[in-house]
Amino acid sequence: MTTKPKIAVVLSGCGVNDGAEIHEAVLTLLALDRHAAEAQCFAPDIPQRDVINHLTGTEQAETRNVLVEAARIARGRIRDLASFRAIEFDAIIFPGGFGAAKNLCSFAVDGADCSVEPSVEAAILAMHKAGKPIGALCISPAIIARVLGAVELTIGNDAGTASALEEMGAKHRAAGPTEVVIDHAARVATTPCYMLDSTIGQIADGADNLVKAVIDLIRESAKAA
Amino acid sequence: MTTKPKIAVVLSGCGVNDGAEIHEAVLTLLALDRHAAEAQCFAPDIPQRDVINHLTGTEQAETRNVLVEAARIARGRIRDLASFRAIEFDAIIFPGGFGAAKNLCSFAVDGADCSVEPSVEAAILAMHKAGKPIGALCISPAIIARVLGAVELTIGNDAGTASALEEMGAKHRAAGPTEVVIDHAARVATTPCYMLDSTIGQIADGADNLVKAVIDLIRESAKAA
Repeated sequence: MTTKPKIAVVLSGCGVNDGAEIHEAVLTLLALDRHAAEAQCFAPDIPQRDVINHLTGTEQAETRNVLVEAARIARGRIRDLASFRAIEFDAIIFPGGFGAAKNLCSFAVDGADCSVEPSVEAAILAMHKAGKPIGALCISPAIIARVLGAVELTIGNDAGTASALEEMGAKHRAAGPTEVVIDHAARVATTPCYMLDSTIGQIADGADNLVKAVIDLIRESAKAA
Repeated sequence: MTTKPKIAVVLSGCGVNDGAEIHEAVLTLLALDRHAAEAQCFAPDIPQRDVINHLTGTEQAETRNVLVEAARIARGRIRDLASFRAIEFDAIIFPGGFGAAKNLCSFAVDGADCSVEPSVEAAILAMHKAGKPIGALCISPAIIARVLGAVELTIGNDAGTASALEEMGAKHRAAGPTEVVIDHAARVATTPCYMLDSTIGQIADGADNLVKAVIDLIRESAKAA
């Protein structure tokens, strides 16, 4: 790795209840900047599963597009995930939020029987096949479990969610705030973030630790190659 | 100040082009946590001036509410600015984004002749009267200039914006990324953030410097009292 690592960040909308968790997304982008990596945001160009009023928690009779809303977090600098090519990137990271479990896959509705948005599945499989690292925060490890199966990962300590991940073939390891679980063989790093009752400072530290782990995994891949 | 300082953060929606700039808002909340301050988010319960598609930059034929959208950044923990009482808080901070100049006041449309949303004006006047510090990022100093007039502040180095602030009675001082301009007499601290072409790391540093300055101003107020 002689140049800046290029890392794709996959967003799932804009807002914890129906899209990407905003703090996790922003603090992942901050951590990438702090570690001298180049970030490129992506999101699928699909309708959101629902639109939730974040003040009341109730559903709004409205349609929003995942890519268009995610562009709010990315300040317009975002690409359709359908255009993602593994060869352009050294790693891929999925921040959390309900959007990861509602828009990127159907885990929030279907649990262990969930399906994965095709562009998301293709991106994960392409990176995995190329031996490139995958990072996932909060509930996003559910997507990785569904696509890759036998991977060691964490969503914190929620027993129901953990057992759904194991039903999909993953091995769950409990983790505390800011901790990262690393599967060196699969090159997957995960951290609980807001799956635990955390402060925004802990989210920043968790995202930073996750990004550090992903960059270390890029170095390991480079050595192995 | 024997207890944690309590600081109000006023959001103007959710997204740089029609609401609060998301990075500035999140990184202000992070800085408050890092400096052991307690944050409470507020936004006015009013319709946004417009809704901008952040992917294309064009206006969408849609209506959104400033408080409801700002709740996305605040993860639901937000209050109507009409309920703001100066006695509950040690300071107030305004992150930037076009929402500050479109929803909190009409600066984006009316320039130096802008009007200010009544709940925003009331909050600024109440804090100023109580000798409590006011912080403003990015374009938000325009609101402070309109309400308080003769205050020293910065919006970076944009000549047109700076002269509009001076037309409203303020004294503009040019500042670089992460720099803070402090008016000790008026207890106002300002920093340019995305009014300059900045990295997200510079936004984090600017927000952190601004929060530090605001907390120092709280201490100065306490000594003077």
